[in-house]
Amino acid sequence: MHDGGPSIVTSERERLAVIDLGSNSFRLVVFMAWEGWWRRTDEIYEPVRIGEGLAATGRLGEEPMRRALATLDVFDHFCRAAGLSGDRVDALATSAIRDAENAAGFLALARERTSLPIRVLSREEEARYGYLAAVNSTTLTDGCVLDLGGGSLQLVRVLDRMAHELGSWRLGAVRMTERFLPANGPAKRRQIEQLREHVAGELRRAGWLAHAGPRLIGLGGTVRNLAAAVQRASGLPSGGVQAAVVSGEALEELVERLAALPAAQRSTVPGIKPARADLILAGAIVVQGVLLAGGFDGLEVTEAGLREGVFFERLLADRPPFSKAASPTADDRPPLFADLRRTSVLNLAAQYRPDAAHTDHVATLALAMFDELARLRLHEGDPRERELLWAACMLHDIGMSVDYDDHHKHSRYLILNGGLPGYSPIEVAIIAQAARYHRKGMPEPGPLAALFGPRDLARLDRCAVLLRLAEDLERSRDQMVRATRFTFTAAATATGEAPAESDADGGSGEIELRLIADGEPAVPRWAARRESELFARAFHRELLVAA
Amino acid sequence: MHDGGPSIVTSERERLAVIDLGSNSFRLVVFMAWEGWWRRTDEIYEPVRIGEGLAATGRLGEEPMRRALATLDVFDHFCRAAGLSGDRVDALATSAIRDAENAAGFLALARERTSLPIRVLSREEEARYGYLAAVNSTTLTDGCVLDLGGGSLQLVRVLDRMAHELGSWRLGAVRMTERFLPANGPAKRRQIEQLREHVAGELRRAGWLAHAGPRLIGLGGTVRNLAAAVQRASGLPSGGVQAAVVSGEALEELVERLAALPAAQRSTVPGIKPARADLILAGAIVVQGVLLAGGFDGLEVTEAGLREGVFFERLLADRPPFSKAASPTADDRPPLFADLRRTSVLNLAAQYRPDAAHTDHVATLALAMFDELARLRLHEGDPRERELLWAACMLHDIGMSVDYDDHHKHSRYLILNGGLPGYSPIEVAIIAQAARYHRKGMPEPGPLAALFGPRDLARLDRCAVLLRLAEDLERSRDQMVRATRFTFTAAATATGEAPAESDADGGSGEIELRLIADGEPAVPRWAARRESELFARAFHRELLVAA
Repeated sequence: MHDGGPSIVTSERERLAVIDLGSNSFRLVVFMAWEGWWRRTDEIYEPVRIGEGLAATGRLGEEPMRRALATLDVFDHFCRAAGLSGDRVDALATSAIRDAENAAGFLALARERTSLPIRVLSREEEARYGYLAAVNSTTLTDGCVLDLGGGSLQLVRVLDRMAHELGSWRLGAVRMTERFLPANGPAKRRQIEQLREHVAGELRRAGWLAHAGPRLIGLGGTVRNLAAAVQRASGLPSGGVQAAVVSGEALEELVERLAALPAAQRSTVPGIKPARADLILAGAIVVQGVLLAGGFDGLEVTEAGLREGVFFERLLADRPPFSKAASPTADDRPPLFADLRRTSVLNLAAQYRPDAAHTDHVATLALAMFDELARLRLHEGDPRERELLWAACMLHDIGMSVDYDDHHKHSRYLILNGGLPGYSPIEVAIIAQAARYHRKGMPEPGPLAALFGPRDLARLDRCAVLLRLAEDLERSRDQMVRATRFTFTAAATATGEAPAESDADGGSGEIELRLIADGEPAVPRWAARRESELFARAFHRELLVAA
Repeated sequence: MHDGGPSIVTSERERLAVIDLGSNSFRLVVFMAWEGWWRRTDEIYEPVRIGEGLAATGRLGEEPMRRALATLDVFDHFCRAAGLSGDRVDALATSAIRDAENAAGFLALARERTSLPIRVLSREEEARYGYLAAVNSTTLTDGCVLDLGGGSLQLVRVLDRMAHELGSWRLGAVRMTERFLPANGPAKRRQIEQLREHVAGELRRAGWLAHAGPRLIGLGGTVRNLAAAVQRASGLPSGGVQAAVVSGEALEELVERLAALPAAQRSTVPGIKPARADLILAGAIVVQGVLLAGGFDGLEVTEAGLREGVFFERLLADRPPFSKAASPTADDRPPLFADLRRTSVLNLAAQYRPDAAHTDHVATLALAMFDELARLRLHEGDPRERELLWAACMLHDIGMSVDYDDHHKHSRYLILNGGLPGYSPIEVAIIAQAARYHRKGMPEPGPLAALFGPRDLARLDRCAVLLRLAEDLERSRDQMVRATRFTFTAAATATGEAPAESDADGGSGEIELRLIADGEPAVPRWAARRESELFARAFHRELLVAA
């Protein structure tokens, strides 16, 4: 029995603080993991701008260093107060600190004043963490990863999920802004052209880029902010930007709009954050340069970044503090999830208290019905759709952790807000809406209607009704119904064989659902009989539930 | 340290299925309790209408009995499959079954075919459970409880939270509809008048009703549905109806609107459920009759009902299956929560995994600052506002069970959807918005803006900034800051004494916050300095955080 309460996690939990000393901002993130599952549990952000002035002088400025040391002092106190030290803290410096002439002096001061174990990442290490973040948060197998920071741009070519060429350029958004664009007023066309030419020239040294397609995955705060602005411009509700796509055209429109505004006013463009208003135009132009050089149609965004790359490596490579937390990957393979989509669903479910026996059985029954109806040619049996159905089954009840009333709506809320890396926005929307309609009502596309095409609506209907039927058969949560069998009646044959092609297409007959159960399945039958209307809409058949 | 995961509940959980065999619908609800906290974990509803035809014949009809037995069979299977039997099931029959001439025959059949232990409640018992539900889900101390079912109306006079006069009338919505209103077409004025006269005549026998005010609490499906319709008509978003107020005027408007429509079309009125469309008009007129007879201005709605009354009695009176779950009330007092508002907040918090040391300390710091600023005459020190601040502190982090990102928004969602019986809608809204703004941003009234007056906005500002300051001081979640002290600077005296009255009102000076901490409070100071803008808006003072 499901007892309706939120998640119990009795096993040991380990935590890791990752500190990112970026050229634009410093950020401290705490990850927690238990039994291979994880979540982010804390985050402190400070727009330090340690890279300010670096493009002109080659040195870290006094004022930026003062801000940086003050912030590190705060982070240091936080870690100590939180009991995070030794293997539980990893602090990483990137481009600005790596490249500054006076970096050693700054690092000496930082190490003197705090106990933070600061590592200065090489260009290759920085690029590799971006790659690990991208490949562990998207389904990228072949293509390119773009990581745009304040100081530098990293590009990594990916073949069969493995990193091949790694490149790093001093084309970060802070650097390019300071070098090419005016601090005040709109950007002049000539300034933009000079920046474009500089980017194109620099990228020419990566000959492989022209063949790195088709997919380009983008990381970093600038990329996330561009995606948010494009999302808002297309009328989608503001939510996360995981798996959002920024097309070349949308980016061009955004650049036009941003360039016409003085830097200080760019945050009036919906989605643009005030703290990035002055950097966002240069960042957008650098991304455009990559699209052009690689012939990419657009950029797929992931919310994961350097920090997640560090975390995933520790989690998956069985390194402290997560030793024994997961099965280590073989030594010759990088630390990658074997099946990200499956992992994402199970990780989201693990945040709550799933009644594993119930959800697993709902999934088993639903997938068996899916397969049988495909054999009977009532639908195509698309394996992607089958996976969405499985995900909806695994997640349908997580909303019970909010309240029993409207728990179907709460499940949707938790799915949309928790996110499912590896699934596209429309896939997440279908999973969320199927969970939303797992009890009653005729499915509608809901808050993300703008993403739905007609085929998606039909998919949602099929996923919703099969989840619902499975839930009906498991209404008393005791796995009493072991299996199901569909049989054509009326116009179809009496033996359960598929009817003639024309009949399957015409969809005029009836189909009977028999339940194979331990005992008398009174509750399942009573519950399943309520689904005839939605079943008819999804499969064009009248559903009969056998007595 | 808070580890960010959802609630752990390691103690033993007990469950109780309450089955309500009402005149209009049958409903099975499962409650779970652990350590005195509770939640609803399952519910099955079937609009059986066993009372159909009873008004005309005095007997249960064959077809209604058949529907009732089929539904009881389903409930019986559900309970057995769910492992609920013996003390864990309580099945209650009310008005229709109590009053029907052939009830004994029906009960014999039900007992033969199922193992459900059906109790037929007397009028007094039915009224008493309604009373227990009302007084344990609202702050009613003196007034009247109205419980309107399909078969009967119960009214209970309450003095100092104790039940006094109990009355029961055969004025249920199913009964009145069948007796007075047409099955099809709009209701005629004469029919409505006859129903009104009948209700008034019946209620005349409760002489005490005229003196039972001022508050009238309403229970039951009809009342909830009327509240939903009134809520929708006033432009509020559809959500729960806990503590919603249905004024006499709003009810009159609704009756006019419903009476003009044929029964089948009444569900076109936003908020009216199709399954109640035919009953709702008679129900509304019965409620109007009570308002008139008692001189009440309106009806305050609670979502609790008979089923919760049964549950609360078991939970609070230390009866099976909840023996030892809570401290039993003294024998001579009915089973009532000592402090419902406090209990509601702690019960909602207990659903998630609160970091008790952190939330308690945030509350301690916030309330101490509230009290000190009241002594310094920067606000009135309203004890109700103090309680809202406490509630927001206890609940501010529950959204972390959804996701770290936007957890302040998730906390709001969980508060608004979880509900806080005993708090009015505007109070719940202030608590939810204070939690929403516990990290950053200038507080706005949010989705329930329609409820906010100017004083509420000022209250929200004060609650939000004090919660935020307390959270800042507890930023590293280690209780390092033990206490705070405010001191007037600038125009004020140097000793921390309150300035002259005119200065406190004028609000032109500065106020310094000193931290008394174990160790160097670098993180708290860094965090608290961000609150000066909101502090100035809330208290009209410039906030300085002492070094």
